[in-house]
Amino acid sequence: MTAIGIYGSNGRMGRAIATIIGDEGGTIAGGVDAGGDPAPLAGDADVLVDFSTPAALEPHLAAAVAAGTPIVIGTTGLSATHQALIDAAAQRIAVLQTGNTSLGVTLLGILVREAAARLGSDWDIEIVEMHHRHKVDAPSGTAILLGEAAAQARGTSLSEVRVDGRAGLVGARTEETIGFSSLRGGSVVGDHQVIFAGEGERIELGHRGEDRSIFARGAVKAALWLAGRAPGRYQMAEVLGL
Amino acid sequence: MTAIGIYGSNGRMGRAIATIIGDEGGTIAGGVDAGGDPAPLAGDADVLVDFSTPAALEPHLAAAVAAGTPIVIGTTGLSATHQALIDAAAQRIAVLQTGNTSLGVTLLGILVREAAARLGSDWDIEIVEMHHRHKVDAPSGTAILLGEAAAQARGTSLSEVRVDGRAGLVGARTEETIGFSSLRGGSVVGDHQVIFAGEGERIELGHRGEDRSIFARGAVKAALWLAGRAPGRYQMAEVLGL
Amino acid sequence: MTAIGIYGSNGRMGRAIATIIGDEGGTIAGGVDAGGDPAPLAGDADVLVDFSTPAALEPHLAAAVAAGTPIVIGTTGLSATHQALIDAAAQRIAVLQTGNTSLGVTLLGILVREAAARLGSDWDIEIVEMHHRHKVDAPSGTAILLGEAAAQARGTSLSEVRVDGRAGLVGARTEETIGFSSLRGGSVVGDHQVIFAGEGERIELGHRGEDRSIFARGAVKAALWLAGRAPGRYQMAEVLGL
Amino acid sequence: MTAIGIYGSNGRMGRAIATIIGDEGGTIAGGVDAGGDPAPLAGDADVLVDFSTPAALEPHLAAAVAAGTPIVIGTTGLSATHQALIDAAAQRIAVLQTGNTSLGVTLLGILVREAAARLGSDWDIEIVEMHHRHKVDAPSGTAILLGEAAAQARGTSLSEVRVDGRAGLVGARTEETIGFSSLRGGSVVGDHQVIFAGEGERIELGHRGEDRSIFARGAVKAALWLAGRAPGRYQMAEVLGL
Repeated sequence: MTAIGIYGSNGRMGRAIATIIGDEGGTIAGGVDAGGDPAPLAGDADVLVDFSTPAALEPHLAAAVAAGTPIVIGTTGLSATHQALIDAAAQRIAVLQTGNTSLGVTLLGILVREAAARLGSDWDIEIVEMHHRHKVDAPSGTAILLGEAAAQARGTSLSEVRVDGRAGLVGARTEETIGFSSLRGGSVVGDHQVIFAGEGERIELGHRGEDRSIFARGAVKAALWLAGRAPGRYQMAEVLGL
Repeated sequence: MTAIGIYGSNGRMGRAIATIIGDEGGTIAGGVDAGGDPAPLAGDADVLVDFSTPAALEPHLAAAVAAGTPIVIGTTGLSATHQALIDAAAQRIAVLQTGNTSLGVTLLGILVREAAARLGSDWDIEIVEMHHRHKVDAPSGTAILLGEAAAQARGTSLSEVRVDGRAGLVGARTEETIGFSSLRGGSVVGDHQVIFAGEGERIELGHRGEDRSIFARGAVKAALWLAGRAPGRYQMAEVLGL
Repeated sequence: MTAIGIYGSNGRMGRAIATIIGDEGGTIAGGVDAGGDPAPLAGDADVLVDFSTPAALEPHLAAAVAAGTPIVIGTTGLSATHQALIDAAAQRIAVLQTGNTSLGVTLLGILVREAAARLGSDWDIEIVEMHHRHKVDAPSGTAILLGEAAAQARGTSLSEVRVDGRAGLVGARTEETIGFSSLRGGSVVGDHQVIFAGEGERIELGHRGEDRSIFARGAVKAALWLAGRAPGRYQMAEVLGL
Repeated sequence: MTAIGIYGSNGRMGRAIATIIGDEGGTIAGGVDAGGDPAPLAGDADVLVDFSTPAALEPHLAAAVAAGTPIVIGTTGLSATHQALIDAAAQRIAVLQTGNTSLGVTLLGILVREAAARLGSDWDIEIVEMHHRHKVDAPSGTAILLGEAAAQARGTSLSEVRVDGRAGLVGARTEETIGFSSLRGGSVVGDHQVIFAGEGERIELGHRGEDRSIFARGAVKAALWLAGRAPGRYQMAEVLGL
């Protein structure tokens, strides 16, 4: 049985993962949180999952690389610098970094990519997400993942076209931009909607997460799938056979 | 210039089409409504568009076949018998029958097909539509079109799995069924949503028509594209290059 | 401490209620399910909650009346005959019957009543609800509760104006009717939306239940509030101080 | 017949108003746009409507006060300084300033006020709006109007609790704040939604404008109602009898 080590084991996702690893056919190798040493767990585990904080990513990756252990990264709020660290690590170990581990969101990303590719740039793209009041970063990792799918389908990169919120006399909308809106409140697990707004009509593609267990289950599926893989960066769509 | 003849020229769609034919680069060959003789117009026009009533479909098709004139059929509320008549006519002339002529809905149909093909049958499918208070048939032609896309992607036919509304002690939902709900009210141009409901998550794919002109414009585009084509049945996706 | 007896104790709601009674400051007097004798529990409990089936309502009410024990009825799918039985029982004991025990839905009912009272009958009313695939009755008790609020505000009764679903050549919408649409799928806890559709604009008032515990918590609050009350019919709005 | 003068007569709203004044039983006194002199029109008109720009508000108010002519102000993007100018003018003439002239939005404001008053501050409030790609200011005047209704109902002022957008590591949500999100795209006339997010449930109160004519019609109704009134600030709810 595959032994999974959890970085961020006391967080919401870490605890949810620990609860269901057995159901999915794995075992728990152990957990580490802020202040703990990530190295011993990386040595004990067959595969690691990281749902901690951006600041902890570098030592977690270093430990995984040193031990040669594959790692699933679900931490959100990552910068371009973090992505470069992940690219470097992926030369040495198998890495799957994703803003969302659910089957539904992974499929939504595929549909958004297809819609963006087929619709002209006269269809404006807006992405709205809502999460519970405790979430500390915005936009969500999933919203960014969906924005990247749309931007790539249009032959550009998200950083070129991303607009985070609007306030004041911002002027008319610029063609090709992708707008992000982040709502926070209550206990919302995670809702996302991508709107394509054309002249006289709109297409709305959305996902509602009802239960946090879908993300935990997807993360464990990804970990079991990633264990033993060759170095490189992998995608959720591969895990889910989409 | 292509001359377009309109069956149902005094209806909402007929009048909207007449208004914008010139903008799209066609001319009006004339119009016929209930009680009129469809034959002379079929002879005068390069292509026909029909947004009338199911009862008038048979004489309209007969006139089109007799004159060898291609026809775009946007009339909704058609039965299997009507579809058989259209199949027969398509042996002799070019026919494009569609429940919706907008670019957005045509793309939505493609996305629904893809989602239905990739998601297992443990994801329940529900289709909801809303139209203005004057619409006389339910579900809308567009809702049926979307249901057919989903059913075909799952390797079944819509008639096998269709459920129209629920009332009373209907029992638990049967797997593989596709439910339809039709809302009517106010001046709504046409909203459609296809919901895929799985365990713990939902995907929602929708379209909002804001302005009836999108349908008129699409119908005229389809007519201009169909004029001069060989006999056979054609699809909106071909017209729009999707 | 107030001892609560549960009719339907093995159903989804019955089990959820049993889990949280302690948190809310009550105790469990016991549970009865199909085939069990309701009389002893009615004698032991300070107050009863019933989330069972319409067929079991009559014996449950009889047991409550015989023991003089107040009862909260959350069973859905009740007919006019059941309502008459409840009215009769309320001459002898305190009864609170409701289609929904959540704070949010109770407030939504108040807002719907107000909107219906202020908007003319040229604003069409449609009610849409979605629940998980296991729900056996339609429309939901909550949808009916919302429809009754709207009908009463317009000076009519729901039975006069209710339309359950639409299929086929149904003709144009009739003014003053209230349409119901029931969607079923996945694991949806319970979503409701009341749409007021006017000429050129729509008002949409909705509620999303994210977690079944809100209903269980509301039911227990209602039971604790009802214990010791004089005979009569009571409302959730009174319990919640709305 | 009441003669209505239009400031901003070449804008979207100005033109829509000119089109329907006759239907509503008024006449057009004339129109003025950027660069024109507002004084003569203020003298000729029985009442003025202003849908121009914040920069033009001061001269428009000065002209209205000098002529003693009531004025309806629908210009959006106004600051606290503008509001002070309006308060001063309202000492001398009748003024009705509103972020939205539709019946539906005016009612929505009433419902939002009521919901905010009855729900505790543990229900988080978020306001989302979407408008066409040409709109230059954010949030919309209507979104602010709805936010003010909610803030007042909670005994605070919007400026104390308003949060415009979220991006980056913003931290957990602060209780009592009201978040605003502004989407832009396509030809959307104007959608607004106020979300109350509690523990385990959400209430969503929304409005969809389908057709710009509802705003023009409401503005003309307001102008006809305001003509001849005593000095003071008036509200749309008074005009509509809500």
